[in-house]
Amino acid sequence: MARQERAIKTRKVILEAAGAVFDEHGYTATTIAMVLERAEVTKGALYFHFPSKESLAQAVLDEQIPRGAVPPQPCKLQELVDITFVFGQRLLNNSLLKGSVRLAVDQCAPPGVDHSGPYRQWADHLVLVLEQAAAQGELLPTVEPRQTVELLVGAFAGIQLMSRALTDRADLAERISVLWGHILPSVAVPGLLTGIDRSPDRGVRVLAGIEETDADEAELDLSRR
Amino acid sequence: MARQERAIKTRKVILEAAGAVFDEHGYTATTIAMVLERAEVTKGALYFHFPSKESLAQAVLDEQIPRGAVPPQPCKLQELVDITFVFGQRLLNNSLLKGSVRLAVDQCAPPGVDHSGPYRQWADHLVLVLEQAAAQGELLPTVEPRQTVELLVGAFAGIQLMSRALTDRADLAERISVLWGHILPSVAVPGLLTGIDRSPDRGVRVLAGIEETDADEAELDLSRR
Repeated sequence: MARQERAIKTRKVILEAAGAVFDEHGYTATTIAMVLERAEVTKGALYFHFPSKESLAQAVLDEQIPRGAVPPQPCKLQELVDITFVFGQRLLNNSLLKGSVRLAVDQCAPPGVDHSGPYRQWADHLVLVLEQAAAQGELLPTVEPRQTVELLVGAFAGIQLMSRALTDRADLAERISVLWGHILPSVAVPGLLTGIDRSPDRGVRVLAGIEETDADEAELDLSRR
Repeated sequence: MARQERAIKTRKVILEAAGAVFDEHGYTATTIAMVLERAEVTKGALYFHFPSKESLAQAVLDEQIPRGAVPPQPCKLQELVDITFVFGQRLLNNSLLKGSVRLAVDQCAPPGVDHSGPYRQWADHLVLVLEQAAAQGELLPTVEPRQTVELLVGAFAGIQLMSRALTDRADLAERISVLWGHILPSVAVPGLLTGIDRSPDRGVRVLAGIEETDADEAELDLSRR
């Protein structure tokens, strides 16, 4: 592996370990030593990438959007729906995302860590998708994309929280489906409503497609060496 | 004051102090000593009411519903809307509620504290209001009251969280108004839609009415002595 490639891999290993530790213990109780033990990297490697616990937390917080990608859809509202289901599905077993969401939600982080970041980043990201939907004539004329995406981001944050508290997120996909069932009629033009797939297993199906593509690309990557 | 009355007042003072300390420091960092100092009561008085930090946290968590009362309305959907606006408004300056919400949202509380309580209690409370709305013919036939109230509770939790992170809750009433703007058309029969008041200052106005009533009752109470 080239040096840069190795550095990227190490950074990823550290982030994943940090996400897991933040998820289990929260910001305050997490120590660099705990992350080191989980990541099985040297102290020097960790401090090379992250000079402090704050910077580690900030990097974990900033990972949500890059990990929220889904395949583009001709219907942009469907793509928006997919983003929520895929993120919900990933929250079930991705420790980095779990830790990131806990950091955004807990009040424990010190002033140096901007835990409002994910809310703003998600809204900025999703508003582009909703504006594309508007440009394609998918939205009712009453929709103000910024208001709608901020509602979605806030509501999603709370729904995953409630699902975590009640069922350790086992019913999260059901709850996301109910959210869309209530919101779509106020957002989509009537002709689109029945065509948008918001069944609870949507996330599993979209994710299966993504992972196949990832595996194909990895294979391609390997055959190139 | 009779002895029982004094005990009720002391319990209230302790709960309010505990709410404030939990709000500022979170569960883990809060100590009984901090609550004692804030409440200005004796150690004996505190332990008489709350034998442990867990029991104190549990009592703070259980205060949300009793403090969510609003005047009954002929239109039950309006009453439901009012509950959300009034709770949002109270969250701005009621330390006990702020602390209670932080305990429900933070993952820090130990297994002994049931921080899923407020989600279930709110849903159980609100479903009764929505069922009354159904009985009065206010709801579309597609509405399943339990699903809708669980969505409302989860979405509200996240919306207040996002509002806290971005504006220290200054825009919470606006966000609650946007939530209802998106949800009501999927819930209410069309004839009711324009009649339901969901303007952002709804909470302030309803609360002004409640406080007048409270003041009147206190006066009446005093004149009886």
